[in-house]
Amino acid sequence: MGARFDTITFLSDYGTGDEFVGVVKSVIRSIAPDVQVLDLTHEIPPYDVRAGGLTLGRSAQYLCPGVVLAVVDPGVGTERRGVAIEVGGGQSYLVGPDNGLLAGAVAMSGGATAVVELTNPAFQLPAPGPTFAGRDVFAPAAAHLCQGVPLVDLGDAIDPLSLLPGLLPLTRQEDGALVAEVLWVDRYGNCQLNVDPDEVTDFGPRVQVRWADDVRTADRARTFEGITPGQIGLVTDSYGMLAVCMGKRSAADELRMPVGTEVTLAAPGDEPTTASPVQLTTKADR
Amino acid sequence: MGARFDTITFLSDYGTGDEFVGVVKSVIRSIAPDVQVLDLTHEIPPYDVRAGGLTLGRSAQYLCPGVVLAVVDPGVGTERRGVAIEVGGGQSYLVGPDNGLLAGAVAMSGGATAVVELTNPAFQLPAPGPTFAGRDVFAPAAAHLCQGVPLVDLGDAIDPLSLLPGLLPLTRQEDGALVAEVLWVDRYGNCQLNVDPDEVTDFGPRVQVRWADDVRTADRARTFEGITPGQIGLVTDSYGMLAVCMGKRSAADELRMPVGTEVTLAAPGDEPTTASPVQLTTKADR
Amino acid sequence: MGARFDTITFLSDYGTGDEFVGVVKSVIRSIAPDVQVLDLTHEIPPYDVRAGGLTLGRSAQYLCPGVVLAVVDPGVGTERRGVAIEVGGGQSYLVGPDNGLLAGAVAMSGGATAVVELTNPAFQLPAPGPTFAGRDVFAPAAAHLCQGVPLVDLGDAIDPLSLLPGLLPLTRQEDGALVAEVLWVDRYGNCQLNVDPDEVTDFGPRVQVRWADDVRTADRARTFEGITPGQIGLVTDSYGMLAVCMGKRSAADELRMPVGTEVTLAAPGDEPTTASPVQLTTKADR
Repeated sequence: MGARFDTITFLSDYGTGDEFVGVVKSVIRSIAPDVQVLDLTHEIPPYDVRAGGLTLGRSAQYLCPGVVLAVVDPGVGTERRGVAIEVGGGQSYLVGPDNGLLAGAVAMSGGATAVVELTNPAFQLPAPGPTFAGRDVFAPAAAHLCQGVPLVDLGDAIDPLSLLPGLLPLTRQEDGALVAEVLWVDRYGNCQLNVDPDEVTDFGPRVQVRWADDVRTADRARTFEGITPGQIGLVTDSYGMLAVCMGKRSAADELRMPVGTEVTLAAPGDEPTTASPVQLTTKADR
Repeated sequence: MGARFDTITFLSDYGTGDEFVGVVKSVIRSIAPDVQVLDLTHEIPPYDVRAGGLTLGRSAQYLCPGVVLAVVDPGVGTERRGVAIEVGGGQSYLVGPDNGLLAGAVAMSGGATAVVELTNPAFQLPAPGPTFAGRDVFAPAAAHLCQGVPLVDLGDAIDPLSLLPGLLPLTRQEDGALVAEVLWVDRYGNCQLNVDPDEVTDFGPRVQVRWADDVRTADRARTFEGITPGQIGLVTDSYGMLAVCMGKRSAADELRMPVGTEVTLAAPGDEPTTASPVQLTTKADR
Repeated sequence: MGARFDTITFLSDYGTGDEFVGVVKSVIRSIAPDVQVLDLTHEIPPYDVRAGGLTLGRSAQYLCPGVVLAVVDPGVGTERRGVAIEVGGGQSYLVGPDNGLLAGAVAMSGGATAVVELTNPAFQLPAPGPTFAGRDVFAPAAAHLCQGVPLVDLGDAIDPLSLLPGLLPLTRQEDGALVAEVLWVDRYGNCQLNVDPDEVTDFGPRVQVRWADDVRTADRARTFEGITPGQIGLVTDSYGMLAVCMGKRSAADELRMPVGTEVTLAAPGDEPTTASPVQLTTKADR
């Protein structure tokens, strides 16, 4: 039985203030000494399955083949299932709780070709309590998969169609406008929307942005530097999605636009111009 | 002289905002290119030797064989000793300051079988100042131990019994109650007590919890999900210790129960019920 | 074409809350599977090129040979150049934006011996948008350099003298005093000055420290522990620079001395003693 993979990509909501991440890596190294663990992030907000799933989904296309270990697991110790998912007929595996966390990455990888529930205690650590499945169940499964253990040895096969789906909010049309949502605020305060740039092409180079009680006009811009200081821009971000940005300032902070904010995009012109100082300044610049 | 280990587990209070951790790893890699450094955590609060020691002690049983490098070192540059400790007759080594930080992990590993003070400058970096012993003294010692340098080459042998002990608070009995202490608050706000679950078995499935001016009744629960929302539970945590938990909320924040809080556990029934809204709600739920 | 290096040292302002660092590492591993990435830090404040450059400069002498990948890049996507810099005739390489970030480390490494602008798309990832050059341009360049790709294959050779210099603030003499600046506040609150300890030797064992509206007298001390509690000390820090310290407390917080503060050092005695309670206490202690 030869080694199958030498990389585990690891995401969690463990933070790095406790020893959780280090202990998981030590367990992996005890089982699979030649495996490298790449940390995707461990700063997913505690229990935020959606944020973890979106992060995995964004990253999937850039991950090297191997095993993805993902743990955001509010239901740990309950009847929620722990699973290992094969994608691409064995090109990669994903290990974690069956709570929707893995769904986006599975979809990005072409869908599940086989799934087991992690029920075989022979590939788990004995645990003093049931609350650290990352250490006791998921890390051993990921490490054993790297070592070449067949998927079916880890537990009972289950129907891929029975996996809990991830929930990705869809945009909707409303009176010629596009109603969207902030999916992600990154470290720089850029607000990624669930919008493909093609969806707003018809609105032209300037787009009305409405959220909460605010209305602003944004310029489409190719880079952060291309946004006029103090104004807002719509940039195609590094994942190909539309993002609300403010140059070197945090759009999320300055516009009060946290994750989950409903944002409506429309053609400019119908709003009262007094509500949009951006528009006037832009004209003067041109 | 062949390589002895290929893993160094590294804990510190360096944080990750400065380059300290990276520089230490670079020094290690310069000496021992094939060694992997596993970060346990670097977010130990500055100078908090006790928190660092408890973290090491909790983790010890899960660490793969190799060298543990631990630096929480308020006395750096003074006459406190830097030490390398052999455990298990050479199964693993621990390197760091002799200030109690390593004591718990040494005990968990069966005790020291040999100790040297790190006095040999041939295995240290020349230092502009004496304040970064992690880089100049401890990291080189850890790396050289991995490479097979005999322990005694690193400095003068000292008596293992002369090592500073760690101080672990003990519980005490008081009027039939158990007086305990919060050892650790994890990222999720769970409050680990210095209590073995067996110590409270006699109190039954519900336990009175007293701290500061508060009295509450907690249910013993197997998982976080098993705790009734809004109420508190006593869970056997992933290290086998009793922890005060509040489901998906932070018990430490909501109950104002930081590290070091004295917590008294007792059989329920003697307290005035008005002080325990939890109890009433629980009854109604059943 | 054999592998040239197996180490990339990585610094950025990406933080660790998003997946940026993990994705960059995954891209590197896809191209150069045997390369280890050492994180120097990713907590450089967003866009703070100066802080990133100082961190790199401090660390340079301790880094193992290989490639330094550094990304603090407020001008990403604009005409600022992405560069790969050879130092020591090929002993190491530095990859990042040409905005001064790399200048200090290049100088510490003896200066650039060759430079290319990263213009060859064959060694870059196709990008949905131009805003994540770390992933799409810099990481592939660093990985390919490790794999042995010749520098000149990555793009057009440019004149090393055309690189943007880093700006290091110089001290100046003023009425017998030395006007300095806080370069760096570390995790412990120590305030590193742009001052070589030799520059203040003539002031003697006690030095007047003036900043904002404050005047204090500091003792030269060899270690943090050597500073009398509640007083301030001038310590030669672990990089050989003079730092304002307060034992186990944060000098930056207690003295309100953030990065960039102008600090004047002088011989003691000329200031009104009422402004310096430290001096009086010190006398009483002796």
